[in-house]
Amino acid sequence: MKSYLECVPCFIRQTWDVLQRVTGDQGIQEGVMRNVLWAVSRMDLNDPPPVMSQYIHQMIRRKTGLIDPYKEIKELSNRVVLSMYDRLKEQIQESADPLETALRLAIAGNLIDMGARSHIDAAYIQDAINRAFVEPLAWNREAFVTEVEQAGAILYLADNAGEIVFDRLLIEELPMEKITVAVRGYPILNDATMDDAREVGLTEIVRVMDTGAAAPGIVLSDSSESFVQAFEEADLILSKGQGNYETLSDCEKDIFFILTVKCPVIARDLDCRPGEMIVRKNQHSLASTQ
Amino acid sequence: MKSYLECVPCFIRQTWDVLQRVTGDQGIQEGVMRNVLWAVSRMDLNDPPPVMSQYIHQMIRRKTGLIDPYKEIKELSNRVVLSMYDRLKEQIQESADPLETALRLAIAGNLIDMGARSHIDAAYIQDAINRAFVEPLAWNREAFVTEVEQAGAILYLADNAGEIVFDRLLIEELPMEKITVAVRGYPILNDATMDDAREVGLTEIVRVMDTGAAAPGIVLSDSSESFVQAFEEADLILSKGQGNYETLSDCEKDIFFILTVKCPVIARDLDCRPGEMIVRKNQHSLASTQ
Repeated sequence: MKSYLECVPCFIRQTWDVLQRVTGDQGIQEGVMRNVLWAVSRMDLNDPPPVMSQYIHQMIRRKTGLIDPYKEIKELSNRVVLSMYDRLKEQIQESADPLETALRLAIAGNLIDMGARSHIDAAYIQDAINRAFVEPLAWNREAFVTEVEQAGAILYLADNAGEIVFDRLLIEELPMEKITVAVRGYPILNDATMDDAREVGLTEIVRVMDTGAAAPGIVLSDSSESFVQAFEEADLILSKGQGNYETLSDCEKDIFFILTVKCPVIARDLDCRPGEMIVRKNQHSLASTQ
Repeated sequence: MKSYLECVPCFIRQTWDVLQRVTGDQGIQEGVMRNVLWAVSRMDLNDPPPVMSQYIHQMIRRKTGLIDPYKEIKELSNRVVLSMYDRLKEQIQESADPLETALRLAIAGNLIDMGARSHIDAAYIQDAINRAFVEPLAWNREAFVTEVEQAGAILYLADNAGEIVFDRLLIEELPMEKITVAVRGYPILNDATMDDAREVGLTEIVRVMDTGAAAPGIVLSDSSESFVQAFEEADLILSKGQGNYETLSDCEKDIFFILTVKCPVIARDLDCRPGEMIVRKNQHSLASTQ
Protein backbone atom coordinates (compact mmCIF):
# COMPACT_ATOMS: atom_id res chain seq x y z
CA MET A 1 0.00 0.00 0.00
CA LYS A 2 1.35 3.44 -0.88
CA SER A 3 1.37 6.36 1.52
CA TYR A 4 -1.33 9.01 1.25
CA LEU A 5 -1.25 12.72 2.07
CA GLU A 6 -3.61 11.84 4.92
CA CYS A 7 -0.71 9.94 6.50
CA VAL A 8 1.32 13.16 6.75
CA PRO A 9 -0.44 14.72 9.80
CA CYS A 10 -0.15 11.30 11.46
CA PHE A 11 3.64 11.07 10.85
CA ILE A 12 4.08 14.50 12.44
CA ARG A 13 1.80 13.71 15.41
CA GLN A 14 3.65 10.42 15.95
CA THR A 15 7.01 12.22 15.88
CA TRP A 16 5.86 14.68 18.53
CA ASP A 17 4.33 11.90 20.67
CA VAL A 18 7.60 9.97 20.72
CA LEU A 19 9.78 13.04 21.22
CA GLN A 20 7.81 14.03 24.32
CA ARG A 21 8.14 10.50 25.64
CA VAL A 22 11.88 10.14 25.12
CA THR A 23 13.44 13.52 25.89
CA GLY A 24 12.84 16.82 27.61
CA ASP A 25 15.76 18.35 25.68
CA GLN A 26 14.12 21.02 23.55
CA GLY A 27 17.17 21.29 21.29
CA ILE A 28 16.93 17.61 20.38
CA GLN A 29 13.14 17.83 20.02
CA GLU A 30 13.47 20.80 17.67
CA GLY A 31 16.29 19.21 15.63
CA VAL A 32 14.38 15.97 15.11
CA MET A 33 11.11 17.73 14.34
CA ARG A 34 12.74 19.98 11.73
CA ASN A 35 14.52 17.00 10.18
CA VAL A 36 11.33 14.91 10.02
CA LEU A 37 9.35 17.79 8.47
CA TRP A 38 12.05 18.13 5.83
CA ALA A 39 12.14 14.37 5.19
CA VAL A 40 8.35 14.12 4.88
CA SER A 41 8.36 17.15 2.56
CA ARG A 42 10.36 15.10 0.04
CA MET A 43 9.13 11.57 0.80
CA ASP A 44 8.23 9.09 -1.94
CA LEU A 45 4.49 8.46 -1.55
CA ASN A 46 4.94 5.12 -3.32
CA ASP A 47 6.60 3.76 -0.17
CA PRO A 48 4.21 2.27 2.40
CA PRO A 49 3.81 4.34 5.60
CA PRO A 50 6.07 2.09 7.76
CA VAL A 51 9.09 3.17 5.68
CA MET A 52 8.68 6.76 6.92
CA SER A 53 7.91 5.54 10.46
CA GLN A 54 11.15 3.59 10.41
CA TYR A 55 13.05 6.71 9.29
CA ILE A 56 11.44 8.81 12.04
CA HIS A 57 12.25 6.33 14.78
CA GLN A 58 15.80 5.81 13.54
CA MET A 59 16.30 9.59 13.60
CA ILE A 60 14.97 9.79 17.17
CA ARG A 61 17.18 6.89 18.26
CA ARG A 62 20.24 8.50 16.69
CA LYS A 63 19.62 11.92 18.25
CA THR A 64 18.65 10.70 21.73
CA GLY A 65 20.81 7.57 21.98
CA LEU A 66 17.68 5.87 23.37
CA ILE A 67 17.35 2.43 21.80
CA ASP A 68 13.93 1.38 23.05
CA PRO A 69 11.64 4.23 24.17
CA TYR A 70 8.62 1.93 24.49
CA LYS A 71 10.37 -0.70 26.64
CA GLU A 72 8.26 -0.03 29.74
CA ILE A 73 5.00 0.10 27.80
CA LYS A 74 5.88 -3.20 26.14
CA GLU A 75 6.74 -4.89 29.43
CA LEU A 76 3.57 -3.52 31.00
CA SER A 77 1.35 -4.75 28.17
CA ASN A 78 2.98 -8.20 28.21
CA ARG A 79 2.50 -8.41 31.97
CA VAL A 80 -1.11 -7.21 31.91
CA VAL A 81 -2.18 -9.60 29.17
CA LEU A 82 -0.16 -12.51 30.63
CA SER A 83 -2.02 -12.03 33.93
CA MET A 84 -5.23 -12.66 31.96
CA TYR A 85 -3.83 -15.68 30.11
CA ASP A 86 -5.43 -18.45 32.22
CA ARG A 87 -8.86 -16.83 32.19
CA LEU A 88 -8.71 -16.15 28.44
CA LYS A 89 -7.51 -19.72 27.76
CA GLU A 90 -10.51 -21.02 29.68
CA GLN A 91 -12.87 -18.72 27.79
CA ILE A 92 -11.48 -20.00 24.50
CA GLN A 93 -11.72 -23.65 25.46
CA GLU A 94 -15.24 -23.35 26.85
CA SER A 95 -16.56 -21.34 23.89
CA ALA A 96 -18.71 -22.86 21.13
CA ASP A 97 -16.02 -22.07 18.53
CA PRO A 98 -12.56 -21.94 20.16
CA LEU A 99 -10.83 -20.97 16.89
CA GLU A 100 -13.11 -17.99 16.31
CA THR A 101 -12.84 -16.93 19.95
CA ALA A 102 -9.03 -17.06 19.80
CA LEU A 103 -9.07 -15.18 16.49
CA ARG A 104 -11.37 -12.51 17.94
CA LEU A 105 -9.04 -12.03 20.89
CA ALA A 106 -5.99 -11.86 18.61
CA ILE A 107 -7.72 -9.11 16.60
CA ALA A 108 -8.74 -7.24 19.75
CA GLY A 109 -5.13 -7.45 20.94
CA ASN A 110 -4.16 -5.57 17.80
CA LEU A 111 -5.59 -2.44 19.44
CA ILE A 112 -2.48 -2.37 21.68
CA ASP A 113 -0.74 -0.13 19.17
CA MET A 114 1.34 2.91 20.10
CA GLY A 115 1.57 3.92 16.44
CA ALA A 116 -2.15 4.65 16.44
CA ARG A 117 -2.55 5.85 20.05
CA SER A 118 -0.56 7.95 22.51
CA HIS A 119 -1.54 6.08 25.70
CA ILE A 120 -2.32 2.49 26.69
CA ASP A 121 -3.11 0.97 30.11
CA ALA A 122 -4.79 -2.07 31.70
CA ALA A 123 -8.30 -0.57 31.47
CA TYR A 124 -7.79 0.08 27.75
CA ILE A 125 -6.71 -3.54 27.20
CA GLN A 126 -9.75 -4.85 29.11
CA ASP A 127 -12.01 -2.66 26.95
CA ALA A 128 -10.39 -4.09 23.83
CA ILE A 129 -11.10 -7.64 25.08
CA ASN A 130 -14.73 -6.80 25.86
CA ARG A 131 -15.11 -5.41 22.34
CA ALA A 132 -13.72 -8.61 20.85
CA PHE A 133 -16.77 -10.60 21.91
CA VAL A 134 -19.43 -8.21 20.65
CA GLU A 135 -18.06 -6.73 17.41
CA PRO A 136 -19.15 -8.40 14.17
CA LEU A 137 -16.47 -10.51 12.49
CA ALA A 138 -17.00 -11.30 8.82
CA TRP A 139 -14.64 -14.15 8.01
CA ASN A 140 -14.65 -17.20 5.79
CA ARG A 141 -14.07 -19.89 8.40
CA GLU A 142 -13.93 -22.74 5.89
CA ALA A 143 -11.37 -21.06 3.63
CA PHE A 144 -9.20 -20.14 6.59
CA VAL A 145 -9.26 -23.66 8.08
CA THR A 146 -8.67 -25.31 4.71
CA GLU A 147 -5.69 -23.11 3.89
CA VAL A 148 -4.18 -23.63 7.31
CA GLU A 149 -4.64 -27.42 6.97
CA GLN A 150 -3.18 -27.59 3.45
CA ALA A 151 -0.17 -25.38 4.13
CA GLY A 152 3.13 -27.07 4.89
CA ALA A 153 4.87 -24.06 6.41
CA ILE A 154 3.01 -21.15 8.00
CA LEU A 155 4.71 -17.85 8.80
CA TYR A 156 2.92 -15.85 11.51
CA LEU A 157 3.91 -12.15 11.43
CA ALA A 158 3.48 -10.72 14.91
CA ASP A 159 2.76 -7.04 15.47
CA ASN A 160 2.84 -5.55 18.99
CA ALA A 161 3.94 -6.45 22.51
CA GLY A 162 1.00 -7.39 24.74
CA GLU A 163 -0.86 -8.39 21.57
CA ILE A 164 1.68 -11.20 21.27
CA VAL A 165 0.06 -12.98 24.27
CA PHE A 166 -3.20 -13.06 22.30
CA ASP A 167 -1.18 -14.33 19.33
CA ARG A 168 0.08 -17.17 21.52
CA LEU A 169 -3.51 -18.08 22.43
CA LEU A 170 -4.46 -18.13 18.75
CA ILE A 171 -1.37 -20.12 17.75
CA GLU A 172 -2.26 -22.72 20.40
CA GLU A 173 -5.50 -23.31 18.45
CA LEU A 174 -3.55 -23.83 15.19
CA PRO A 175 -1.21 -26.65 14.06
CA MET A 176 1.77 -25.34 16.02
CA GLU A 177 4.31 -27.69 14.46
CA LYS A 178 3.91 -25.90 11.09
CA ILE A 179 4.20 -22.38 12.46
CA THR A 180 7.14 -19.98 12.59
CA VAL A 181 6.51 -16.64 14.27
CA ALA A 182 8.41 -13.55 13.10
CA VAL A 183 8.97 -10.52 15.34
CA ARG A 184 10.80 -7.25 14.55
CA GLY A 185 14.59 -7.33 14.39
CA TYR A 186 14.99 -4.13 16.43
CA PRO A 187 12.81 -2.09 18.78
CA ILE A 188 10.36 0.15 16.90
CA LEU A 189 7.31 1.70 18.56
CA ASN A 190 5.77 -0.97 20.79
CA ASP A 191 6.22 -3.69 18.17
CA ALA A 192 7.14 -7.10 19.58
CA THR A 193 10.79 -8.18 19.41
CA MET A 194 12.48 -11.43 20.46
CA ASP A 195 12.50 -10.23 24.10
CA ASP A 196 8.71 -10.04 24.06
CA ALA A 197 8.37 -13.45 22.42
CA ARG A 198 10.49 -14.87 25.25
CA GLU A 199 8.68 -12.95 27.98
CA VAL A 200 5.30 -14.37 26.97
CA GLY A 201 6.58 -17.94 26.52
CA LEU A 202 6.05 -18.01 22.76
CA THR A 203 9.60 -19.26 22.19
CA GLU A 204 8.78 -22.38 24.24
CA ILE A 205 5.95 -23.54 22.01
CA VAL A 206 6.93 -22.56 18.44
CA ARG A 207 9.94 -21.50 16.40
CA VAL A 208 10.43 -17.74 16.61
CA MET A 209 12.72 -15.68 14.38
CA ASP A 210 13.15 -11.98 13.78
CA THR A 211 12.91 -10.00 10.55
CA GLY A 212 16.38 -8.54 10.95
CA ALA A 213 14.83 -5.14 10.23
CA ALA A 214 13.49 -2.24 12.31
CA ALA A 215 10.49 -1.33 10.16
CA PRO A 216 7.06 -1.55 11.85
CA GLY A 217 6.02 -3.80 8.96
CA ILE A 218 7.72 -6.16 6.50
CA VAL A 219 10.26 -4.49 4.22
CA LEU A 220 11.99 -7.43 2.54
CA SER A 221 14.81 -5.31 1.10
CA ASP A 222 15.83 -4.38 4.67
CA SER A 223 15.31 -7.85 6.16
CA SER A 224 17.83 -10.57 6.98
CA GLU A 225 18.54 -13.36 4.49
CA SER A 226 17.14 -16.00 6.84
CA PHE A 227 13.88 -14.07 7.22
CA VAL A 228 13.54 -13.52 3.47
CA GLN A 229 14.09 -17.27 2.97
CA ALA A 230 11.43 -18.17 5.57
CA PHE A 231 9.07 -15.67 3.95
CA GLU A 232 9.61 -17.10 0.48
CA GLU A 233 9.30 -20.70 1.63
CA ALA A 234 6.10 -20.18 3.61
CA ASP A 235 2.98 -21.64 2.00
CA LEU A 236 0.74 -19.38 4.01
CA ILE A 237 1.27 -16.14 5.88
CA LEU A 238 -0.83 -15.01 8.81
CA SER A 239 -0.19 -11.28 9.05
CA LYS A 240 -1.18 -9.32 12.15
CA GLY A 241 -1.88 -5.61 12.23
CA GLN A 242 -1.80 -2.48 10.12
CA GLY A 243 1.97 -2.14 9.61
CA ASN A 244 2.24 -5.63 8.13
CA TYR A 245 -0.84 -4.96 5.99
CA GLU A 246 0.53 -1.64 4.73
CA THR A 247 3.77 -3.27 3.61
CA LEU A 248 2.29 -6.54 2.24
CA SER A 249 -1.08 -5.55 0.77
CA ASP A 250 0.36 -5.79 -2.75
CA CYS A 251 2.39 -8.96 -2.11
CA GLU A 252 1.47 -11.98 -4.25
CA LYS A 253 1.84 -14.69 -1.63
CA ASP A 254 -1.09 -16.36 0.16
CA ILE A 255 -1.75 -14.07 3.09
CA PHE A 256 -4.52 -13.72 5.63
CA PHE A 257 -4.51 -10.20 7.08
CA ILE A 258 -5.76 -10.23 10.66
CA LEU A 259 -6.21 -6.81 12.22
CA THR A 260 -8.32 -4.11 13.76
CA VAL A 261 -8.61 -1.18 11.37
CA LYS A 262 -7.35 1.89 13.18
CA CYS A 263 -7.14 4.59 10.54
CA PRO A 264 -9.34 5.96 7.72
CA VAL A 265 -6.66 5.41 5.06
CA ILE A 266 -6.50 1.68 5.73
CA ALA A 267 -10.28 1.51 6.09
CA ARG A 268 -10.58 2.93 2.59
CA ASP A 269 -7.94 0.56 1.24
CA LEU A 270 -9.79 -2.41 2.78
CA ASP A 271 -13.22 -0.98 1.91
CA CYS A 272 -14.44 -1.15 5.50
CA ARG A 273 -15.11 1.14 8.49
CA PRO A 274 -12.45 2.29 11.00
CA GLY A 275 -12.77 0.08 14.08
CA GLU A 276 -13.78 -3.00 12.09
CA MET A 277 -12.27 -6.40 12.97
CA ILE A 278 -10.78 -7.96 9.85
CA VAL A 279 -9.73 -11.45 8.69
CA ARG A 280 -9.13 -10.92 4.99
CA LYS A 281 -7.40 -13.05 2.37
CA ASN A 282 -5.23 -10.88 0.12
CA GLN A 283 -6.58 -10.12 -3.33
CA HIS A 284 -3.47 -11.08 -5.25
CA SER A 285 -3.29 -14.80 -4.52
CA LEU A 286 -5.04 -17.22 -6.89
CA ALA A 287 -7.40 -18.66 -4.30
CA SER A 288 -8.93 -15.42 -3.02
CA THR A 289 -11.62 -16.45 -0.58
CA GLN A 290 -13.23 -13.47 1.09
CA MET B 1 3.69 34.52 22.24
CA LYS B 2 6.24 32.45 20.39
CA SER B 3 5.39 29.25 18.54
CA TYR B 4 6.08 25.93 20.20
CA LEU B 5 6.95 22.54 18.70
CA GLU B 6 3.49 21.44 19.88
CA CYS B 7 2.05 23.85 17.31
CA VAL B 8 3.72 21.90 14.48
CA PRO B 9 1.29 18.91 14.34
CA CYS B 10 -1.54 21.47 14.42
CA PHE B 11 -0.14 23.47 11.45
CA ILE B 12 0.04 20.26 9.43
CA ARG B 13 -3.45 19.08 10.44
CA GLN B 14 -4.84 22.53 9.61
CA THR B 15 -3.17 22.44 6.18
CA TRP B 16 -4.71 19.06 5.40
CA ASP B 17 -8.14 20.16 6.68
CA VAL B 18 -8.17 23.20 4.40
CA LEU B 19 -6.74 21.35 1.41
CA GLN B 20 -9.52 18.76 1.60
CA ARG B 21 -12.06 21.53 1.82
CA VAL B 22 -10.81 23.59 -1.12
CA THR B 23 -9.66 21.14 -3.78
CA GLY B 24 -9.91 17.55 -4.90
CA ASP B 25 -6.84 18.04 -7.12
CA GLN B 26 -4.27 15.68 -5.64
CA GLY B 27 -1.41 17.41 -7.46
CA ILE B 28 -2.25 20.73 -5.81
CA GLN B 29 -2.81 19.03 -2.43
CA GLU B 30 0.57 17.32 -2.66
CA GLY B 31 2.38 20.46 -3.82
CA VAL B 32 0.97 22.60 -1.02
CA MET B 33 1.56 19.92 1.63
CA ARG B 34 5.21 19.46 0.60
CA ASN B 35 5.74 23.22 0.53
CA VAL B 36 4.17 23.71 3.98
CA LEU B 37 6.24 20.85 5.47
CA TRP B 38 9.36 22.48 4.08
CA ALA B 39 8.34 25.94 5.35
CA VAL B 40 7.53 24.62 8.84
CA SER B 41 10.85 22.71 8.87
CA ARG B 42 12.67 26.05 8.75
CA MET B 43 10.20 28.34 10.54
CA ASP B 44 11.31 30.87 13.16
CA LEU B 45 9.76 29.70 16.42
CA ASN B 46 9.99 33.27 17.74
CA ASP B 47 7.11 34.20 15.45
CA PRO B 48 3.64 33.70 16.94
CA PRO B 49 1.61 30.83 15.39
CA PRO B 50 -0.64 33.09 13.24
CA VAL B 51 2.40 34.05 11.12
CA MET B 52 2.74 30.45 9.93
CA SER B 53 -1.05 30.11 9.54
CA GLN B 54 -1.01 33.19 7.33
CA TYR B 55 1.77 31.66 5.20
CA ILE B 56 -0.13 28.37 4.87
CA HIS B 57 -3.36 30.02 3.82
CA GLN B 58 -1.60 32.36 1.39
CA MET B 59 0.08 29.32 -0.17
CA ILE B 60 -3.28 27.54 -0.52
CA ARG B 61 -4.89 30.65 -2.01
CA ARG B 62 -2.06 31.03 -4.51
CA LYS B 63 -2.12 27.38 -5.61
CA THR B 64 -5.92 26.99 -5.80
CA GLY B 65 -6.92 30.53 -6.81
CA LEU B 66 -9.64 30.23 -4.16
CA ILE B 67 -9.79 33.50 -2.23
CA ASP B 68 -12.20 32.57 0.56
CA PRO B 69 -12.55 28.83 1.24
CA TYR B 70 -14.57 29.42 4.43
CA LYS B 71 -17.10 31.78 2.82
CA GLU B 72 -20.06 29.40 3.23
CA ILE B 73 -19.12 28.46 6.79
CA LYS B 74 -18.87 32.15 7.67
CA GLU B 75 -22.22 32.99 6.11
CA LEU B 76 -23.82 30.01 7.83
CA SER B 77 -22.45 30.95 11.26
CA ASN B 78 -23.52 34.58 10.84
CA ARG B 79 -27.03 33.45 9.82
CA VAL B 80 -27.37 30.90 12.63
CA VAL B 81 -26.27 33.30 15.36
CA LEU B 82 -28.25 36.22 13.89
CA SER B 83 -31.39 34.07 14.06
CA MET B 84 -30.76 33.81 17.81
CA TYR B 85 -30.08 37.55 18.24
CA ASP B 86 -33.48 38.61 19.61
CA ARG B 87 -33.66 35.77 22.12
CA LEU B 88 -30.06 36.34 23.28
CA LYS B 89 -30.67 40.11 23.58
CA GLU B 90 -33.66 39.38 25.80
CA GLN B 91 -31.63 36.93 27.91
CA ILE B 92 -28.96 39.58 28.41
CA GLN B 93 -31.40 42.33 29.33
CA GLU B 94 -33.37 40.15 31.74
CA SER B 95 -30.30 38.73 33.46
CA ALA B 96 -29.07 39.93 36.87
CA ASP B 97 -25.81 41.15 35.34
CA PRO B 98 -26.29 42.06 31.66
CA LEU B 99 -22.59 42.91 31.16
CA GLU B 100 -21.42 39.54 32.48
CA THR B 101 -24.06 37.70 30.47
CA ALA B 102 -23.01 39.49 27.27
CA LEU B 103 -19.37 38.82 28.05
CA ARG B 104 -20.08 35.12 28.67
CA LEU B 105 -21.87 34.87 25.32
CA ALA B 106 -19.02 36.68 23.55
CA ILE B 107 -16.55 34.18 25.02
CA ALA B 108 -18.75 31.20 24.09
CA GLY B 109 -18.96 32.60 20.56
CA ASN B 110 -15.19 32.31 20.39
CA LEU B 111 -15.67 28.54 20.05
CA ILE B 112 -16.79 29.17 16.44
CA ASP B 113 -13.19 28.73 15.28
CA MET B 114 -12.20 26.75 12.18
CA GLY B 115 -8.53 27.03 13.14
CA ALA B 116 -9.17 24.84 16.16
CA ARG B 117 -11.92 22.59 14.70
CA SER B 118 -12.64 20.92 11.38
CA HIS B 119 -16.44 21.17 11.51
CA ILE B 120 -19.02 23.62 12.85
CA ASP B 121 -22.84 23.58 12.62
CA ALA B 122 -25.93 24.99 14.34
CA ALA B 123 -26.00 22.27 17.04
CA TYR B 124 -22.37 23.02 17.88
CA ILE B 125 -23.15 26.74 18.25
CA GLN B 126 -26.14 26.01 20.51
CA ASP B 127 -23.91 23.79 22.68
CA ALA B 128 -21.40 26.62 22.97
CA ILE B 129 -24.16 28.98 24.13
CA ASN B 130 -25.42 26.50 26.71
CA ARG B 131 -21.87 26.16 28.03
CA ALA B 132 -21.56 29.92 28.37
CA PHE B 133 -24.10 30.02 31.20
CA VAL B 134 -22.68 27.21 33.31
CA GLU B 135 -18.88 27.47 32.96
CA PRO B 136 -17.04 29.37 35.70
CA LEU B 137 -15.78 32.80 34.66
CA ALA B 138 -13.05 34.31 36.81
CA TRP B 139 -12.97 37.99 35.95
CA ASN B 140 -12.32 41.22 37.77
CA ARG B 141 -15.57 43.04 37.04
CA GLU B 142 -14.55 46.24 38.77
CA ALA B 143 -11.21 46.57 36.97
CA PHE B 144 -12.87 45.86 33.61
CA VAL B 145 -15.66 48.42 34.14
CA THR B 146 -13.26 51.06 35.47
CA GLU B 147 -10.86 50.70 32.54
CA VAL B 148 -13.69 50.81 30.02
CA GLU B 149 -15.09 53.94 31.70
CA GLN B 150 -11.73 55.71 31.89
CA ALA B 151 -10.60 54.90 28.32
CA GLY B 152 -11.15 57.56 25.68
CA ALA B 153 -10.76 55.31 22.65
CA ILE B 154 -11.41 51.56 22.76
CA LEU B 155 -10.28 49.23 19.97
CA TYR B 156 -12.26 45.96 19.85
CA LEU B 157 -10.38 43.26 17.91
CA ALA B 158 -12.91 40.83 16.47
CA ASP B 159 -12.03 37.22 15.76
CA ASN B 160 -14.42 34.96 13.84
CA ALA B 161 -17.59 35.15 11.76
CA GLY B 162 -20.67 34.06 13.72
CA GLU B 163 -18.83 35.05 16.87
CA ILE B 164 -19.11 38.64 15.63
CA VAL B 165 -22.87 38.58 16.38
CA PHE B 166 -22.02 37.84 20.01
CA ASP B 167 -19.46 40.64 19.83
CA ARG B 168 -22.24 42.98 18.71
CA LEU B 169 -24.34 41.94 21.73
CA LEU B 170 -21.39 42.67 24.05
CA ILE B 171 -20.58 45.98 22.35
CA GLU B 172 -24.20 47.05 22.86
CA GLU B 173 -23.58 46.74 26.62
CA LEU B 174 -20.47 48.95 26.39
CA PRO B 175 -20.09 52.71 25.66
CA MET B 176 -20.47 52.29 21.90
CA GLU B 177 -19.45 55.84 21.03
CA LYS B 178 -15.87 55.12 22.17
CA ILE B 179 -15.50 51.83 20.31
CA THR B 180 -13.86 51.00 16.99
CA VAL B 181 -14.08 47.38 15.86
CA ALA B 182 -11.27 45.88 13.76
CA VAL B 183 -11.79 42.89 11.47
CA ARG B 184 -9.27 41.10 9.23
CA GLY B 185 -8.19 42.83 6.02
CA TYR B 186 -8.52 39.68 3.90
CA PRO B 187 -10.26 36.30 4.25
CA ILE B 188 -8.29 33.90 6.45
CA LEU B 189 -9.84 30.78 7.99
CA ASN B 190 -13.32 31.77 9.23
CA ASP B 191 -12.07 35.04 10.69
CA ALA B 192 -14.49 37.93 10.35
CA THR B 193 -13.89 40.47 7.57
CA MET B 194 -15.75 43.68 6.67
CA ASP B 195 -18.39 41.60 4.84
CA ASP B 196 -19.23 39.82 8.08
CA ALA B 197 -19.33 43.07 10.05
CA ARG B 198 -21.85 44.38 7.52
CA GLU B 199 -23.88 41.16 7.43
CA VAL B 200 -24.47 41.23 11.17
CA GLY B 201 -25.24 44.97 11.31
CA LEU B 202 -22.15 45.91 13.29
CA THR B 203 -21.29 48.66 10.82
CA GLU B 204 -24.59 50.37 11.65
CA ILE B 205 -23.85 50.79 15.33
CA VAL B 206 -20.08 51.42 15.61
CA ARG B 207 -17.09 52.39 13.49
CA VAL B 208 -15.58 49.31 11.86
CA MET B 209 -12.17 49.19 10.14
CA ASP B 210 -9.99 46.38 8.91
CA THR B 211 -6.40 45.52 9.81
CA GLY B 212 -5.25 45.62 6.20
CA ALA B 213 -3.58 42.26 6.82
CA ALA B 214 -4.50 38.61 6.27
CA ALA B 215 -3.02 37.16 9.48
CA PRO B 216 -5.48 35.41 11.83
CA GLY B 217 -4.18 37.72 14.55
CA ILE B 218 -2.60 41.18 14.77
CA VAL B 219 0.75 41.50 12.96
CA LEU B 220 1.41 45.24 13.03
CA SER B 221 4.27 45.05 10.52
CA ASP B 222 1.83 43.65 7.94
CA SER B 223 -1.07 45.97 8.83
CA SER B 224 -2.29 49.14 7.14
CA GLU B 225 -1.12 52.55 8.36
CA SER B 226 -4.62 53.52 9.43
CA PHE B 227 -4.98 50.38 11.53
CA VAL B 228 -1.57 50.84 13.15
CA GLN B 229 -2.56 54.41 14.00
CA ALA B 230 -5.88 53.32 15.54
CA PHE B 231 -4.03 50.63 17.47
CA GLU B 232 -1.47 53.10 18.82
CA GLU B 233 -4.06 55.71 19.71
CA ALA B 234 -6.38 53.32 21.54
CA ASP B 235 -6.38 53.70 25.33
CA LEU B 236 -7.76 50.23 25.80
CA ILE B 237 -7.89 47.14 23.61
CA LEU B 238 -10.51 44.43 23.93
CA SER B 239 -8.98 41.44 22.15
CA LYS B 240 -11.11 38.45 21.18
CA GLY B 241 -9.78 34.95 20.65
CA GLN B 242 -6.61 32.91 20.48
CA GLY B 243 -5.05 34.39 17.34
CA ASN B 244 -5.19 37.92 18.72
CA TYR B 245 -3.83 36.65 22.05
CA GLU B 246 -0.98 34.76 20.36
CA THR B 247 0.14 37.87 18.50
CA LEU B 248 -0.43 40.42 21.30
CA SER B 249 0.41 38.57 24.52
CA ASP B 250 3.75 40.40 24.75
CA CYS B 251 2.37 43.79 23.69
CA GLU B 252 2.71 46.57 26.24
CA LYS B 253 -0.60 48.31 25.69
CA ASP B 254 -3.60 47.97 28.02
CA ILE B 255 -5.38 44.87 26.71
CA PHE B 256 -8.14 42.65 28.01
CA PHE B 257 -7.91 39.23 26.37
CA ILE B 258 -11.37 37.69 26.03
CA LEU B 259 -11.40 34.11 24.77
CA THR B 260 -12.14 30.45 25.18
CA VAL B 261 -8.89 28.53 25.53
CA LYS B 262 -8.84 25.92 22.78
CA CYS B 263 -5.35 24.47 22.86
CA PRO B 264 -2.89 23.17 25.46
CA VAL B 265 -0.12 25.58 24.37
CA ILE B 266 -2.25 28.64 25.09
CA ALA B 267 -3.60 27.05 28.27
CA ARG B 268 0.00 26.73 29.50
CA ASP B 269 0.81 30.27 28.46
CA LEU B 270 -2.24 31.57 30.34
CA ASP B 271 -1.74 29.13 33.23
CA CYS B 272 -5.26 27.70 32.91
CA ARG B 273 -7.06 24.60 31.60
CA PRO B 274 -8.07 24.01 27.94
CA GLY B 275 -11.76 24.88 27.67
CA GLU B 276 -11.60 27.65 30.25
CA MET B 277 -13.42 30.97 29.62
CA ILE B 278 -10.97 33.83 30.02
CA VAL B 279 -11.18 37.60 30.61
CA ARG B 280 -7.58 38.48 31.41
CA LYS B 281 -5.73 41.79 31.62
CA ASN B 282 -2.32 41.51 29.96
CA GLN B 283 0.65 41.27 32.29
CA HIS B 284 2.73 43.96 30.63
CA SER B 285 0.60 47.00 31.33
CA LEU B 286 1.25 48.98 34.52
CA ALA B 287 -2.18 48.46 36.00
CA SER B 288 -2.36 44.66 35.81
CA THR B 289 -5.64 43.67 37.39
CA GLN B 290 -6.52 40.10 36.31
